[in-house]
Amino acid sequence: MSPTMKALTYYGEGDIRVEDRPKPTILEPTDAIIRIQTTTICGTDLGISHGKNPEIEQVAREKTGEWNGRILGHEGIGVVEEVGSAVTNFAPGDKVLISCISRCGACENCQKQLYSHCLNGGSWILGYMIDGTLAEYVRTPFADTSLYPIPDDLDKEVGVFLSDALPTGHEIGVQYGEVKPGTDVLIVGAGPVGMGVLLTSQFYSPANIIVADMDDNRLQMALRMGATHTVNPGKDDVKALVDEVTGGRGVDTAIEAVGLPATWELCAENVKEGGNVAVVGVHGKPVNFELNKLWIKNVTITTGLVNANTTGMLLKAVQNTALPIKALATHHFTWDQLGQAWETFYNAEKNRAMKVIIDNS
Amino acid sequence: MSPTMKALTYYGEGDIRVEDRPKPTILEPTDAIIRIQTTTICGTDLGISHGKNPEIEQVAREKTGEWNGRILGHEGIGVVEEVGSAVTNFAPGDKVLISCISRCGACENCQKQLYSHCLNGGSWILGYMIDGTLAEYVRTPFADTSLYPIPDDLDKEVGVFLSDALPTGHEIGVQYGEVKPGTDVLIVGAGPVGMGVLLTSQFYSPANIIVADMDDNRLQMALRMGATHTVNPGKDDVKALVDEVTGGRGVDTAIEAVGLPATWELCAENVKEGGNVAVVGVHGKPVNFELNKLWIKNVTITTGLVNANTTGMLLKAVQNTALPIKALATHHFTWDQLGQAWETFYNAEKNRAMKVIIDNS
Amino acid sequence: MSPTMKALTYYGEGDIRVEDRPKPTILEPTDAIIRIQTTTICGTDLGISHGKNPEIEQVAREKTGEWNGRILGHEGIGVVEEVGSAVTNFAPGDKVLISCISRCGACENCQKQLYSHCLNGGSWILGYMIDGTLAEYVRTPFADTSLYPIPDDLDKEVGVFLSDALPTGHEIGVQYGEVKPGTDVLIVGAGPVGMGVLLTSQFYSPANIIVADMDDNRLQMALRMGATHTVNPGKDDVKALVDEVTGGRGVDTAIEAVGLPATWELCAENVKEGGNVAVVGVHGKPVNFELNKLWIKNVTITTGLVNANTTGMLLKAVQNTALPIKALATHHFTWDQLGQAWETFYNAEKNRAMKVIIDNS
Amino acid sequence: MSPTMKALTYYGEGDIRVEDRPKPTILEPTDAIIRIQTTTICGTDLGISHGKNPEIEQVAREKTGEWNGRILGHEGIGVVEEVGSAVTNFAPGDKVLISCISRCGACENCQKQLYSHCLNGGSWILGYMIDGTLAEYVRTPFADTSLYPIPDDLDKEVGVFLSDALPTGHEIGVQYGEVKPGTDVLIVGAGPVGMGVLLTSQFYSPANIIVADMDDNRLQMALRMGATHTVNPGKDDVKALVDEVTGGRGVDTAIEAVGLPATWELCAENVKEGGNVAVVGVHGKPVNFELNKLWIKNVTITTGLVNANTTGMLLKAVQNTALPIKALATHHFTWDQLGQAWETFYNAEKNRAMKVIIDNS
Repeated sequence: MSPTMKALTYYGEGDIRVEDRPKPTILEPTDAIIRIQTTTICGTDLGISHGKNPEIEQVAREKTGEWNGRILGHEGIGVVEEVGSAVTNFAPGDKVLISCISRCGACENCQKQLYSHCLNGGSWILGYMIDGTLAEYVRTPFADTSLYPIPDDLDKEVGVFLSDALPTGHEIGVQYGEVKPGTDVLIVGAGPVGMGVLLTSQFYSPANIIVADMDDNRLQMALRMGATHTVNPGKDDVKALVDEVTGGRGVDTAIEAVGLPATWELCAENVKEGGNVAVVGVHGKPVNFELNKLWIKNVTITTGLVNANTTGMLLKAVQNTALPIKALATHHFTWDQLGQAWETFYNAEKNRAMKVIIDNS
Repeated sequence: MSPTMKALTYYGEGDIRVEDRPKPTILEPTDAIIRIQTTTICGTDLGISHGKNPEIEQVAREKTGEWNGRILGHEGIGVVEEVGSAVTNFAPGDKVLISCISRCGACENCQKQLYSHCLNGGSWILGYMIDGTLAEYVRTPFADTSLYPIPDDLDKEVGVFLSDALPTGHEIGVQYGEVKPGTDVLIVGAGPVGMGVLLTSQFYSPANIIVADMDDNRLQMALRMGATHTVNPGKDDVKALVDEVTGGRGVDTAIEAVGLPATWELCAENVKEGGNVAVVGVHGKPVNFELNKLWIKNVTITTGLVNANTTGMLLKAVQNTALPIKALATHHFTWDQLGQAWETFYNAEKNRAMKVIIDNS
Repeated sequence: MSPTMKALTYYGEGDIRVEDRPKPTILEPTDAIIRIQTTTICGTDLGISHGKNPEIEQVAREKTGEWNGRILGHEGIGVVEEVGSAVTNFAPGDKVLISCISRCGACENCQKQLYSHCLNGGSWILGYMIDGTLAEYVRTPFADTSLYPIPDDLDKEVGVFLSDALPTGHEIGVQYGEVKPGTDVLIVGAGPVGMGVLLTSQFYSPANIIVADMDDNRLQMALRMGATHTVNPGKDDVKALVDEVTGGRGVDTAIEAVGLPATWELCAENVKEGGNVAVVGVHGKPVNFELNKLWIKNVTITTGLVNANTTGMLLKAVQNTALPIKALATHHFTWDQLGQAWETFYNAEKNRAMKVIIDNS
Repeated sequence: MSPTMKALTYYGEGDIRVEDRPKPTILEPTDAIIRIQTTTICGTDLGISHGKNPEIEQVAREKTGEWNGRILGHEGIGVVEEVGSAVTNFAPGDKVLISCISRCGACENCQKQLYSHCLNGGSWILGYMIDGTLAEYVRTPFADTSLYPIPDDLDKEVGVFLSDALPTGHEIGVQYGEVKPGTDVLIVGAGPVGMGVLLTSQFYSPANIIVADMDDNRLQMALRMGATHTVNPGKDDVKALVDEVTGGRGVDTAIEAVGLPATWELCAENVKEGGNVAVVGVHGKPVNFELNKLWIKNVTITTGLVNANTTGMLLKAVQNTALPIKALATHHFTWDQLGQAWETFYNAEKNRAMKVIIDNS
C-alpha cells in the first residue's frame, strides 16, 4: 500500500474536501518531490472552488479517462525529498521555494523570460493541471528551473509569499506599470494581490501611493503596509482624491488588482497623459475601452500572468528591507487545521483575513 | 495695406476655401516666420473639414470674440523669413523642417520628451489652434525647439514626410510597438499613417510585415513599400494569413492605423502572447476590450499622439536608406493648384492618392 | 553707484576672497536673477581653489580682456528677483531650486536629455564660466529650463542638495550603474558625492551596500545613512569583505566616487560578471584598464557629468522618504560667516564636515 | 572497435593534426550527438593553435590524468544523431544549429540570459573544455537549451555564421553599443567578427558606418558588405575621416573588433559625448584608459563574451534580409580537405580569406 498524505482537493464547484491522498512520486527525470513546510491559499484557489475553471476536470478526463479531483495550491516552501535523474541543481534535504510558475527553460518563451507562456507544458500548472501544494508533499516538474534555494534564516512566511503574491504584484503591477522614484501610484484593490503590489512598489520609492478598496478594514491595513492615502469608492470620490494628491494631473501608474469593469474604469480615468495602466486582476468579462478619450493620452496598458522571472531578485530584496511583508499573514494554522484554514480564507472579509498560513514545522 | 498670401482655410464643416490672407507676423519673441517651400495635406485636415473638430471655432471665438476661419496644415519645409528676439538657433535664410508638434521644451512633459502634451501651449497647434502650413507663410511658435535645420541635399518630399507621417508611424507604431529584428508585424491600415509605419518599421528589420487594408490599390503599393504579405479583410481571412505566416503563433506586434472598432479587434485577436498592440489610428468611439481573453496573454497596448521626439533621428536615418520613402508622394501640384490638391486628396481612394505634394519652388 | 552684495570669489590658485561685488543684472532675455536663500560648497569649488581649472581665467581674459575673479558655487535655492523678457515659467517671488546644470533645452544634446553637454553654452557654467551661487544674488541663464519651482514645505537643506549632490549620485552612480532591488552595491568613497550615491541608491532597494573610505568618521556616517557594511581600505581587505557579503561572486554594481587610479581598481576588481562600474569621481590621470581580464566579464563601465535630468523626479521622491538626507548637512553658517564656511569645508576631514550650509533666511 | 571519424585536433602550440578519432557518445542525459553538415573555423581556433590557451591541456590533465588533444571548433549546423534521456526538444533527424555557447538554462546567470557565464559548466566549452565541431560528429551538452531547430530552406552557410560570428557581432558590438537608426558607427577591425558587427548593425539602420582596418582587401569587402566609408589607419587619419563624416562630433558608437591597445584607443578618441564604446575584440594586455579626458564625456564602455541570447532572433532576421551575409564565406572545402581549410584560414590575409566553409553534404 502506498504511503498517504493529507491534502485539500477540488472535486467540482463547491466541492472541496480534505482527504488522504497517495504521496506523489517522480514521473519525469526533471521532477522533484518536495515535503511542504509552509503553504497558503490564493484567491485563484477560491475561484476554482466557485466553478471558474471547469477545464480542470475536462482536461483530466481527456488525458486519463477519469476524474479523481485535484489537489489545489501553487505556493509554498519545503524540503526536497527526492529528485529525478536529470535534476542537477537540487538534492534531497535542500530547503526550497516553489514557484507558482513551472518552466522548461528552453522554449522560445522561456528564453524570453516569458515563463507564464512556457510552450513545453510549464506555466501555471500546480494545483491546476497537476496536483498542487496544499498537501504534505508535491511533485514539482522542471525542478532545476522552477525551484529556488532559500537561506536558512529566511522568514518562512515571507518565503511563502515569494511563490506568487509578491512576484505577481511586482512583475505585473510594479514593473509593467513602470513605478519609479517620485511617481504617483493608484492601486485599486487591497486584497492579497493588491497588497503584493503595494509592498513591492515601495522597492522603487514612489512619492504617493493611493489605495482604493471597498473594505475599510483592508484600507486600514494598507496604511500600515505603506499606502500614503486610501479611499473607499463606495463612500468617497476616488478622482477627487487623486486630483488633490496630484494637483489635478492624475497618477503616473494606475494598477488594477480586482478584475472588474468598474475597477478597470477607475484606473483608466485616473491615469495621467504618458502614464501606465497595469492590469493585474483576473477579468471574467470584456471591458469598455474608451479609446476615443484615451488614444491621445499616450497611455500604456499592460496585462498578464506572473512570469516569476523576478523571484530570485525578490528573494534577495526581502532580506534587507524594513517593509512589513510578514504582516500579510493574518491567520495561522497547523496542518491538522487545513479545512479550517480554507474556511477562514473562504470568508476572508468577515474574518479580516489577508493571507492564511498553514505550517507543519 | 499688409501683404497677403494664398492659403487653404477652414470655415466650418464642408466649408474649405482657397483665399488671400494677411501674411503672418511675429507675435512672441520665440516665434519664427517661415516661407513654405513644400507642404502636404494630412488625413487630420480632412477630418477637420468633415466637422470633427468644432473646438477650433469655439476656442477662437472664446479667445478673440470672432471667427475668421483657420488656415489648415501642420506639415512642411521652408525657409526662415524672420525670427523673434529670443530665437537663437535659427536665422533668416535657414532651410528648416517644421515639426507638426510645437513644444516649449521646459515643462514637465517636455522634459520627459512627451512633447505631445506640452503644458505651456505647445503640442499639435499648427493648423488647429493657430494658423497652419497650407499657406505661403506660417508663424511657428517655440521656434528654437520646434524647427529642424535640413541639409541642402535632403529630398524635399522626404523632408515634408518628416513633419508628421514618418514620426507618427515611427514613434506611436514602431517604437511603442517594440518592432525588433526578426519579429513579425501586422499593420492594419495602408493609408499615409500605415505607410509611415510600414516604412519606418523596416529601420528595425522585422522578419515579416503583413499589411491589411480594404483597398487593393493600397495593398499593391504596400508591397512595393516593403510589405512581405498583404490581405484585404473584405475578401480574405486575416487570421488565417497571420497563422500561416507565424506558424499559428500570432504576430509580435499588431499596429492599428485606421481608428475603428473592427481594426482594433483585428489587432487584438492576432497578437501573440507577450506581444504589443500599438494604436496609431484616431478613434471616435469606445472599443470592446476582451480583457477576459487578453489579460492572460501578457500583452502591452499603447496609444498616443506623436511626440516628434525622433524627428532628428529620422532626419539622419532617411539620408542613408534604400527605402522607397519618396514613393509616398503620388501627386504633385504647384502653389496655384492648391484647391486641386485638396480635391485630389479629399477623394484619395478614387484618385489612388497617398500623399499630395504642393510645391512652390 | 550700483548695489553690491557679498560673494566668495576665486582669483587664482589659493586666492579665495570674500568681497563685495556688484549685484548681477539680466543680460539675456532668457536670464533670471535669483536672491539666494540657502547655498553650499562643493568639492569642485575646492578643486578650483587648488588651481585645477586655469581655464577659468584664460577664457575670461579671452572673452573680456580682463580678469576680475570668479564668484564660485553652483548649488542653492532662492527667490526669483527678476526675469528676462523671454522667461515664461517663472516670475518674481517664486521659490526656486537652481540646477548646477544650465541648459538651452533645444540643441541636439538637450533633446537627448544629455544636458551636461548642451551645445548652446549651457552645461556646468555657474561658478565656472560665469559667476555662481556663493553670493547674495546670482544670474541664472536659460531660466525656464534650468530652475525648478519648489514647494513651500520642502526642507531647505534637502533642497540645496538637489542642485548637485543628489542628482550626481543618482544619475551617474545609481542610474548609470543600474542599481535595482536585491542587488549588491559597492560604493568607493564616502564624501558628499559618495553619500549622494548611498542615499539615492536606496530609492531602488539594493540588498547590500558596502561603503569603502579611508576616513573612519565618514564610514560611521555611512552606516547611519544606510550602508549595510563599511570597510577602510587602509586597514582592511575590501575584496575579502565583498566576497564574504556576496558569497564570492562580487557586486552587481561598483561605484567609484573618489577619482583616483586606486579607487578605480577597487571597483574593477570587485565587480561581478555582467555587472556595472559607474565612475562618478573626477579623474585627473589615466588609469590602467585590465581589458585582458575584464573583457570576458561582460561588464559595463560608465562615466560622466551630471545631466540634472532627474532633478524633478528627485524633488518628488525626497518629499516622501524616511532617508536621512538632511543629515548630510553637518555644519551651518549665516551669510556673515561665508569665509568661515569656506574654511570649515576646506578642512573637511579635520572638521568632520560633509556639507556646510550657508543660509541667509 | 568503436567507429571513428575525421577531426581537426589541437595537441599543443603549433601542433594541429587532422586525424581519426572515436565517434563521441552520450555522457549525460542532457547531451545530444550531432552529425556535422557544415562547419567553419574561428579566429579563436587560431589563437589556441598559437598557444594562447594552455589551460586546455592543464584542465584536461587535472580532470583525466591524461592529454589526448582537443578537437577544435564551436560552430556548425548538422543533424541530430542521438539524444540523451532528458532531451525533450530534439529528436534524431532534426536539423539543428549548434550555438557556440552551451548553457544549463537554470543557474542565476542563465536566468538573466547571461549564458556566457553559465555557472553549471556551460558557456564556451565546445572545442575548448570539451571536443568541438571540427569533426564529423560532436557531443553537445545541454542540448535542449543550446541547439536551435533550423528550417529546411535556411542557407547552410548563413546557418553556420549563426553559431558565433553573427551573434557575437550583434550582441557584444551592436546591442551593447546601442546602434540605432540614424546613428554614426565606427567599426575598428574588418575580420570575421568586425564583419559580423558590420552586417548585424545594418539591422538597425545606422546613418553612417565607417570601417577601419589595415588590410585594403578587407576594406574593399567591407564596402560590399554595407560600410559607407572605409579607412586604413596605416595610411590615413581615422580621426580626420570621422570628423568629416560626423561634422566634427565623433561617432555615436565605436566598436573595437581587434583586441589591441591601439584599436581601443582609436575607439576611445573617436566617440562622441554620450556615446558607446563596445569592445568585442579579445584583449591580451591592459590598455590605457584616459579617464581624465573621458570621464566628462558620459561614455558607456562595454565588453564581453557572446551570450548567444539573440540566436533565435537572428535566425528569423536572416530569413528576410537583403544583407550579403553569405558573402562572408570566401572559401569552400569538402570534408576531405579539412587540413587545407585550416591552412587557408591560418594564412587568411595572404589568401584573402574571411570565413572558410567545410561542408560534407
